[in-house]
Amino acid sequence: MIRMAILGASGYVGGELLRLCAAHPQLRATRLFGDSKAGQSVGAVHPHVAPAYRDAIVESWSEAALDGVDLVFAALPHGESKKLAGTILDRGIPFVDLGADFRLHDPADYERWYKEPHAAADLLPNFVYGIPELHRETIRGAKAVAAAGCYPTAAILALKPLVEAGMVEPTSIIVDAASGVSGAGRALKEGTSFNTVDGSFAAYGLLSHRHTAEMEQELGATILFTPHLVPMTRGILATCYGSATRSMNPDAPLQALRDAYADEPFVHVTADPPATKWVAGSNAVQLTARYDERTGRVLALSAIDNLGKGAAGQMIQCANLMLGLDEGAGLSNCGVFP
Amino acid sequence: MIRMAILGASGYVGGELLRLCAAHPQLRATRLFGDSKAGQSVGAVHPHVAPAYRDAIVESWSEAALDGVDLVFAALPHGESKKLAGTILDRGIPFVDLGADFRLHDPADYERWYKEPHAAADLLPNFVYGIPELHRETIRGAKAVAAAGCYPTAAILALKPLVEAGMVEPTSIIVDAASGVSGAGRALKEGTSFNTVDGSFAAYGLLSHRHTAEMEQELGATILFTPHLVPMTRGILATCYGSATRSMNPDAPLQALRDAYADEPFVHVTADPPATKWVAGSNAVQLTARYDERTGRVLALSAIDNLGKGAAGQMIQCANLMLGLDEGAGLSNCGVFP
Amino acid sequence: MIRMAILGASGYVGGELLRLCAAHPQLRATRLFGDSKAGQSVGAVHPHVAPAYRDAIVESWSEAALDGVDLVFAALPHGESKKLAGTILDRGIPFVDLGADFRLHDPADYERWYKEPHAAADLLPNFVYGIPELHRETIRGAKAVAAAGCYPTAAILALKPLVEAGMVEPTSIIVDAASGVSGAGRALKEGTSFNTVDGSFAAYGLLSHRHTAEMEQELGATILFTPHLVPMTRGILATCYGSATRSMNPDAPLQALRDAYADEPFVHVTADPPATKWVAGSNAVQLTARYDERTGRVLALSAIDNLGKGAAGQMIQCANLMLGLDEGAGLSNCGVFP
Amino acid sequence: MIRMAILGASGYVGGELLRLCAAHPQLRATRLFGDSKAGQSVGAVHPHVAPAYRDAIVESWSEAALDGVDLVFAALPHGESKKLAGTILDRGIPFVDLGADFRLHDPADYERWYKEPHAAADLLPNFVYGIPELHRETIRGAKAVAAAGCYPTAAILALKPLVEAGMVEPTSIIVDAASGVSGAGRALKEGTSFNTVDGSFAAYGLLSHRHTAEMEQELGATILFTPHLVPMTRGILATCYGSATRSMNPDAPLQALRDAYADEPFVHVTADPPATKWVAGSNAVQLTARYDERTGRVLALSAIDNLGKGAAGQMIQCANLMLGLDEGAGLSNCGVFP
Repeated sequence: MIRMAILGASGYVGGELLRLCAAHPQLRATRLFGDSKAGQSVGAVHPHVAPAYRDAIVESWSEAALDGVDLVFAALPHGESKKLAGTILDRGIPFVDLGADFRLHDPADYERWYKEPHAAADLLPNFVYGIPELHRETIRGAKAVAAAGCYPTAAILALKPLVEAGMVEPTSIIVDAASGVSGAGRALKEGTSFNTVDGSFAAYGLLSHRHTAEMEQELGATILFTPHLVPMTRGILATCYGSATRSMNPDAPLQALRDAYADEPFVHVTADPPATKWVAGSNAVQLTARYDERTGRVLALSAIDNLGKGAAGQMIQCANLMLGLDEGAGLSNCGVFP
Repeated sequence: MIRMAILGASGYVGGELLRLCAAHPQLRATRLFGDSKAGQSVGAVHPHVAPAYRDAIVESWSEAALDGVDLVFAALPHGESKKLAGTILDRGIPFVDLGADFRLHDPADYERWYKEPHAAADLLPNFVYGIPELHRETIRGAKAVAAAGCYPTAAILALKPLVEAGMVEPTSIIVDAASGVSGAGRALKEGTSFNTVDGSFAAYGLLSHRHTAEMEQELGATILFTPHLVPMTRGILATCYGSATRSMNPDAPLQALRDAYADEPFVHVTADPPATKWVAGSNAVQLTARYDERTGRVLALSAIDNLGKGAAGQMIQCANLMLGLDEGAGLSNCGVFP
Repeated sequence: MIRMAILGASGYVGGELLRLCAAHPQLRATRLFGDSKAGQSVGAVHPHVAPAYRDAIVESWSEAALDGVDLVFAALPHGESKKLAGTILDRGIPFVDLGADFRLHDPADYERWYKEPHAAADLLPNFVYGIPELHRETIRGAKAVAAAGCYPTAAILALKPLVEAGMVEPTSIIVDAASGVSGAGRALKEGTSFNTVDGSFAAYGLLSHRHTAEMEQELGATILFTPHLVPMTRGILATCYGSATRSMNPDAPLQALRDAYADEPFVHVTADPPATKWVAGSNAVQLTARYDERTGRVLALSAIDNLGKGAAGQMIQCANLMLGLDEGAGLSNCGVFP
Repeated sequence: MIRMAILGASGYVGGELLRLCAAHPQLRATRLFGDSKAGQSVGAVHPHVAPAYRDAIVESWSEAALDGVDLVFAALPHGESKKLAGTILDRGIPFVDLGADFRLHDPADYERWYKEPHAAADLLPNFVYGIPELHRETIRGAKAVAAAGCYPTAAILALKPLVEAGMVEPTSIIVDAASGVSGAGRALKEGTSFNTVDGSFAAYGLLSHRHTAEMEQELGATILFTPHLVPMTRGILATCYGSATRSMNPDAPLQALRDAYADEPFVHVTADPPATKWVAGSNAVQLTARYDERTGRVLALSAIDNLGKGAAGQMIQCANLMLGLDEGAGLSNCGVFP
């Protein structure tokens, strides 16, 4: 049994980690830190996992509570994880962080996209970027992983093989993506109230969404990224466009994806465009791509669950690698459909 | 490894069985019968489980294909299972049927509610009514189980302990329930098109829904049942009313439910009213109840996933009992939330 | 041109009043009071009506701003309207209040249901209960109308003719109703965030919802009322049950509704059960009813838009009567479907 | 009173025309043709408008029924309107067609995008392309209008002023758009069933959607168009990208839209990105645009209701012009929100 602590246990990713760990053969959530709900039962905070955590309590953060902990997951608001990472690293506990605090390698990128200097830039070299399909070996040997963000996971998995194959002009990429509302977190906002979102579709964060930096780092490209909010709870679809570097067979990009992911249990490449519900509640990614002769562009699409492969699932997949467990333990590649 | 066949593999319950079996330690779906989609790949019929069933094909029914099968699940349109049950029973293969064909013990009830004589009334005695929490021992010893319907599962689990405790007048019960749209099955109908249902709430089947008969049989009561359609895919909430037989503590019905289900891993009794999303994608049931002194009525509420505890989850729970496996193998009591 | 002020202009009902008044031949919204958004443009607060109110600004309440106002609409949080009603009445301006502050005739009912004495009980006799189909003549002559609540409008219109006809036992009534989320108002709450509600159905306010008092007052009955929240923005469906006082033709309750509302342009009685989307965005009510011989109960169903006939539409219908205008001016009996 | 016939009266656009005409000061729907529902009451086919059309019946098409008709609206499946247009034109009845049959001026475009020769190419010159904001004067004088499609209306209104101002490279345009499900019509399909769409987001018609041809014709550009299906009933959002022809002020494209539409009552240009629900149920368009210095691209977004400005609203706006009525009669620029 591996004793696990969750920092940010009262948010949606915290709840999803609890759900997934309840079905994991080794991981056990033993310390649940969530300052805003400290003292409340798990049943009060996350009624969907109440039957599996009948006596568990959310508690305030304290370093002492890390004693005996074998693994730390963090799913905190931006900037919070920087404050605690040093402590966890010093104790040598394997650490998987879902925040953006340690995803960018270059401190200058933080200043550019987050408009302030990185407060713990010296810790950045400890972190590996967490997409197992692309960084499996470095994750396996890492003590700390910065799990990729939801939008970047979707876009990078779709585009990386195409950029690497030289099919797409790296300065030409547009990522037009859409997310379910859980991607905006559990904090109350008018923009995520039911009445605002239901029956509505809109873009947000035009030209300035911070996830652009991650995509550019991992792809070595310049990207115009437009996120949209979909009236659904879970799921991300990334529709990615790039100028083709040459004329090619319409199926060449599809074949490049098939080749790249042939042995990946969580990645499924199909000729038809994927729907987000096919991967809801799972750690799966479904991808397609094609070349448009008429306009000279490559089109690639990617569907993930933002709380699954885009968050809690990916965190567990990374942890499984770090801990030498079966990489897929506790994870499913089947979506909850319909 | 237990080799399992699914009759009706191309419907929603078939798809959910495939999803659940992919995570089950022993059950393996080896024969998938679905006449309307015979010859198609599982990926084409159920893209959400495609990553786990890359080479599987849906096939036409043939008795010969039952050779080597250890367990049969049926999720067929009403009336179809009657035609095949004899064959399966003759071969001695454990059989879990989700249709209504064998749920009522009295052939006269079929004539009353289904408006025609039962075509295989002689087989009725082979079947046990499939709600493990209420009929665990008979299911364990049975060769054939008629898994309970979705609405009846919700209503019966909420009301049975209250009727048995003599708290509720059995002739006074009203079950006002609401279901997600997947309860209506995969066949195309105007009433279940997105444009009809989205943003709308309505009752249907007024006074005449056939599930009334199951509830009356299991509760020994007279019931007025009104089903409603909710603009959501999964979930059933049953709001049940009955005249109290006596004045009592407002929490007495709640306590009766707590007592009845104290040892049940899939049943969770709470003071607050449950929401269907707390149990979505799971085999859980969440319940509450109270007594209203002002009007002299008992109120009990129950939330399940109609495809989970109301269908595929319950089928697997029954099969686990019949086969001597861990009753909860492959099942979760945590909902997919948010 | 009739100059109208709205108290509570920044809420959902305020926004709906603005939308309806933009199409009304006489009413013009000239003063928009909304303290929390004072100083903001209508476009910022209600972007859906921005094209029709390009220069309008929400302002802070001031009595002086009532100069020259011909009509006041109030859609304020509970308890706020009590504080301002005296001022408006003293000025002799026709006043339509949507709050609950003046709906109950008996101050004791406020103490019972709202748990505090009424702070302006002396003003209660000035107010007429605002359902035009039932109180048309008194509304026509009134200076102040307390427009009925959303749930009560639905339930009362369905039940009143049946109670009056002596078909239903007045002590036996159950109102099981469900509302879209806009009924909970614009204030941010976890219970009305998209992620909580989407894909979920639940009851709330068990046994204690304050709208019970209005229903009991108008029907002269004892009522057990259970509200539910539906994952949709607009709409209320009330499913009402009562013990029949006698055996009757199954269609007798339907005929009673048809007779009662034969001349009402906004009430439509149908044999089939109504859906809330049929009345969305409109001032219409759709009703059905029947008698169940098997259980001796009468069933009546009612669908309205909680923001239309349940709020802004009804307010305008009342104002049209008070001001001697065409009762249906600016109102539609056609829902926005699909 | 202007007597109007609707061809295709039983579809969603037919229903929306009925709703809008019920509030129009002059138009009256007198003949409702809908072969598949001939003989049924309007209440059975469109229950949302039942209160306003209590005695109306849907009938089979017959030329004789056009006697006395002053205006014909057609909302038929693709290819059907070609068969009837000659008859209507011969009778000299003003005709507004929503099908694609007469939208493209060049018969060769039909062959390219629709894969067959145009069966009534000789009639093409009779038709004016129906977007009043761009073709007002020609519509005013026309006998026949081919009202623009839903996606093209959204994209063209956003892009036309930017292309005309020479801000955007015409060969570089990408239109990434998303539609509510009503855009797919009323015919039953698995892809538009509630269970398929709810909680899901996906692209469809990759690289080959026929609306591309209309956009290219009206913009004089080469366009890569990707449509998506959103889990909502109404609304289209078009997110449009183009390479800027030069460096410019970030707000220059916004200003170009403001200038172009300053006098248009149904077009509203805002700095913030629009949401589809702001225009639901209305004839409004909400637009924004900006220039991204980092990537050298222009971004323009457009929100309409596919059944409003994208269909029935636009048809009525065109008819108002053709008949010399107030252009906005019977139409609203306020959305039904929330």
